[in-house]
This record gives sequence, structure tokens and C-alpha cells, in this order.
Amino acid sequence: MVLRSIDWKDGKILIIDQTCLPNQLVYKELNTLEAVAEAIVNMRVRGAPLIGITAALGMALVAYKAKNKSREEILRILKEAYNILLNTRPTAVNLRWALKRVLETAENSKEDVSKAVINLAVEMMNADIEINRKMAAVGQNIINNGDVILTHCNTGSLATVSVGTALGVIIEAFNRGKKIMVYATETRPLLQGARLTMFELIHEGVDSTLITDNAVAHAIKEKGITKVLVGADRILSDGTTFNKIGTLQLAILANHFKIPFYVVAPTSTIDMESSREDVIIEERDPNEIRKIGDTYISPKDAKVYNPAFDETPPELITGIITEKGIITPPYKYNIKKIM
Amino acid sequence: MVLRSIDWKDGKILIIDQTCLPNQLVYKELNTLEAVAEAIVNMRVRGAPLIGITAALGMALVAYKAKNKSREEILRILKEAYNILLNTRPTAVNLRWALKRVLETAENSKEDVSKAVINLAVEMMNADIEINRKMAAVGQNIINNGDVILTHCNTGSLATVSVGTALGVIIEAFNRGKKIMVYATETRPLLQGARLTMFELIHEGVDSTLITDNAVAHAIKEKGITKVLVGADRILSDGTTFNKIGTLQLAILANHFKIPFYVVAPTSTIDMESSREDVIIEERDPNEIRKIGDTYISPKDAKVYNPAFDETPPELITGIITEKGIITPPYKYNIKKIM
Repeated sequence: MVLRSIDWKDGKILIIDQTCLPNQLVYKELNTLEAVAEAIVNMRVRGAPLIGITAALGMALVAYKAKNKSREEILRILKEAYNILLNTRPTAVNLRWALKRVLETAENSKEDVSKAVINLAVEMMNADIEINRKMAAVGQNIINNGDVILTHCNTGSLATVSVGTALGVIIEAFNRGKKIMVYATETRPLLQGARLTMFELIHEGVDSTLITDNAVAHAIKEKGITKVLVGADRILSDGTTFNKIGTLQLAILANHFKIPFYVVAPTSTIDMESSREDVIIEERDPNEIRKIGDTYISPKDAKVYNPAFDETPPELITGIITEKGIITPPYKYNIKKIM
Repeated sequence: MVLRSIDWKDGKILIIDQTCLPNQLVYKELNTLEAVAEAIVNMRVRGAPLIGITAALGMALVAYKAKNKSREEILRILKEAYNILLNTRPTAVNLRWALKRVLETAENSKEDVSKAVINLAVEMMNADIEINRKMAAVGQNIINNGDVILTHCNTGSLATVSVGTALGVIIEAFNRGKKIMVYATETRPLLQGARLTMFELIHEGVDSTLITDNAVAHAIKEKGITKVLVGADRILSDGTTFNKIGTLQLAILANHFKIPFYVVAPTSTIDMESSREDVIIEERDPNEIRKIGDTYISPKDAKVYNPAFDETPPELITGIITEKGIITPPYKYNIKKIM
């Protein structure tokens, strides 16, 4: 059974609380804007596509509650919600993309604003699954029988509404009967690889092995890894890819060992407007590194540098797998063509 | 005050129990061979040089207890202890080197075997500090004012009897008034960087920052890291270096970003006899990765690959800093010369 990370039920949002995985599969109802913002900030939902949909459904929740108010009042409340949700995670472009779409639709709707917002958010949620299914199918062109695939962070059903991006391609290959093996990096500091990717791979029955982020080069050398597949939080028009911290070094290592390095992301992740300088790399709480659970694993006063993302230059990327096809270099030209 | 990891007091071994760091500085007495072996296996003492000295003092402990027995009986007991201690950690060459020296001395001593073994072990302990002081001085040749140095795992006083190898060079530079900054990788799975290196750097007052193993490439790019210094568990005659898992990828990243990559190790770490095929890379308990403390951070049945070391080829190493000088390429020739 493919996992479903988020759903909309009668004016309420139902999520899998990912901070409880892999030990417990806990569903949580979000009934207020504050609860939605908290869930994004504290990564109860995470993964660029899922963050976008959660924010859109957050707008729907606000619209649903305000449905008996005047058009102007609903628009005012929605704009407030837009600003609160936009500031939950600064790097993910899907968040901005989703919120902008919802707000524009609200502003352009002549009649029932509330209904228009709810319909759009639900439609975006359904479209996410549809797009991921297409990406998973497109990705089959680069997965061969016998592949040993390394992946980073979590990019599966738990990073999206369902199916996933990079992990969606991998699991689809397995479901089509391709003989593959998967290595998952644990992905410090928040261990999405250990907690979520391994949970999904075992859940689906894929032959999978967990390694620390330190063991990547050694595993490529010793375990015959044939390719690397990762997701993306934002892709610029020249192919520069912002993704989970550690992605840049995976790309450099893949390059060193001459194995292909693929990014898998929907075209909604592509940001045609921003340049590298525009992108803020989120720095997160030092305690994410200093502590695990309630235990300090470093001195309490240790200075910490905790960037959540890094920037992989296009020359290290073999191809970008989207729902519209695989984009290959030269990215500047080919991204524009596909958009 | 420079930390002291191990000492010999009236027939007993006193260690800092490093599994309690950084939260508590706990000293522990080792009174039996079993306790010494357990301390090495469970990494209450760790770091190639310290493991060697601990094993030598373990032999002294056995000899001390058997001092009233016959020469033959003492030799028999020492040989048994040799085999037990040799099997505690298979990769560290210092362990074998130290045990062999002690056993040979016992076998060659004509009179008081027990006394000969104790004297040698204590002498080796003192020589470790002396050698480290020399290495720290030699290493000053490559540390400049303004350097931003990345280091991996723990190679300080806590990895040796005192002073340390790579971290010894760094702290000596600081003590000589050089303006430096240090980035320490946390070093999963056992977090020696977070627990021990950060503890030592803060203890000494060095400007230091902790990063995850994932953040290395990004930190090199964004924080202007100028060089990488690491220790070694074993160096072959061609310069191939076995060290803590993650070292290989640090070397590849340093190479990619064109910054120097130095190994700091005493000549006792150099193994002139073995070839790459002879070296067993220790694979450790999967639960080191699956669990942190008592909490599972991955599914309990996750398959895990947990190599403790990796192998860095000589072409990625800028220089090897030893107590006898800095060895530069061609290593095959220059290592033989220094030995």
C-alpha cells in the first residue's frame, strides 16, 4: 500500500506526523492556521512538494472557516495566512509557488472565494499525485536491471502527497520488476533517510541498505553503486539545484567516481525568475545538531553551522527528470524549452 | 590544562571513559585484562595511538599480576593476553605494533619478565607524548595565520596519551598565537567530532564550529576553509591511508575545491609490510547507526552497512606530517627514506 502523507476531509487537514516515524505511524488532524504553520516549521510535514500542498490546504482551511464572511474579509484573512505560511521555510520554492497560485485564484474569483480556494487546493493535491506518477514513469528510461542506486534524504510518498520524486522513480522501477538495490544515506541532522526513506523502502519490500553520510565515497567504491538520484527544493533556470545539505558533495563524489547523478523534481520546482544570489539558504536551529532527542551529543555551548540546503552547480548534474521529460544539458536552453 | 587520556598507577590503568563525554568527564580504573579489552572494543578509549598504548598497558597489567609466577608461566599468560587484545580492533596497526613490541621484549628479557614489560609499556606511554609534541612542532610549517581548518573525527589528546596528532598540530598553532578557525565534522556514527573534538577545542579556547558530515562541501565553499587535517589508523608504504570512515570523501572534496589535504600520524602508524589487500576494514554493529542512545532512528530491521574506516589513495594526499618531518610525494620513495 502506497503511503498517503496528506488529505483533506470536510474542512480539516489530515497528515502523517513524520516526526513520529519510523517508530510510530501517527496521523494528526490540523484544524487551525497555527497548527499548519507549526507542522511545516517543525517538519511534521516536509519535502518540497508536500510543503507546497500543505500550505495550499492551509489556505483552504482558512477559507473554509471564513466562508460566511464578506469577500473583502476573506481576502484579507487569506493574505495574512499567505504571509504566515510563506515564512515557515524560506528555501522551498514550491511553498511560494503554491501560496501564490492560491492567493491569485482567490483574488480573481468573482463569486464564492472560499469555494474557489478549497477547490484549487484539493485539485493541486490530486495533481501532485498525478505528476509524480508521470515522473516515475519518465524516470524508468534511466533505471536498468542490476542498478545499485544511492539516494539522499527522503523523496518518497512522505515528501509529497503520495508516490514521491526520486524515491518514486526507484520504487516504480522495483514495482515494474527491475532488479535493483538501494543505498540510503541517513541524512543528518534530521535523519530523513534513516527514518523515512528506509521506512518506505522496507514498507515497499525493496532491497535497501542504510549508510551514514560519511560512508558514501567508500560505498560507491566498494558496493558498486551505479547511479545517484536525489530530489530538489529549487532548480534555477540554468539548472543550479538547491536541495538537502549533502547533495553538493554527493554530486562531486558521483563526478569523481564517474557515475551519473540525477535530480528528480516536478517542473513546479523550477524557478525561472530567481538568480543564485536571490536564494536564501535556511540555517536551522543549532540544537538539531547538538542534541539527539533530549541528549546532548556535543558540548552545550558548541558553536554550530547548520545550513539546511546546499547548491549543486549544473555541470555536476547528468539530467533532471520531470513529469514532462528528462532535461539534459545545456540546461539554460533545455529548461526554457520544457517550461 | 592539556587532557591526559591514560595513565599507569601502581599496577592499575586509569583512563578517561570517553563514552561519557562530552557530558561528563569520568575517569575509570581498569584492573583486569577483560576490562582493558572491553574498554577498547566499546571505545571507552579510541584513536589509533591510544589503542596501542592501552594494549601495551594491558600487557603490563597482566605481567604485574603474574609477577610472582615462573618465567614460562608469565610468557604463556602474556601470549594469551596478546591474542585477546589483538582481536579487539582489527584495523588499527598501532595495536599490533604495540603488542608485538611488548611480547618480543618479554620473550627476549633474560631476568625479570614482568618488570621488563611494565617498564616498556610505561616508556611507550611517555614516548607517545614526546612524539606528539614533535609532530605538533613539525606541523607548524603548514599552518598559517588566518587558516580555516577542517578536521574529522577526534585526533587530539583523547585519541592519544596526550597532545594528539592532527588536532595536536591545530591546538599547538593556536597556543603559538596563530589566528585560526576550526570546523569539526560531527563524525557519524559514533560522533567523535561532536563529542570529543568539540570538547577539546572548547576546553582549549579555540574558535571552533561543529558541522554535520553532510555540510563539508558547502562549508568549504561558503566558509573559506583553507585546509583539511586528519589522523590515520594505518598508512601503507605507498602512502595509502586508512582512517575513520568519511576521510576518503573529505580528500576527494579537498581535491575538488583545490585545498590541501594533510594526514598527521606518528611513524608507528606506517605499515611497511602490508598491501591494500591485507588490510581488513572493520565493519561494526549495525545498531551504531540504527540507534542513538536507546532510541531507534531507523526501522529496527533496516539493513545497515557500517564500515569503520575507508582507504584514501596517495594521490589525494598533499603531505603526511610525522614526528620525523613532513613526507610529500612521491610517497613510495619518501616514506622508505624516512623509515
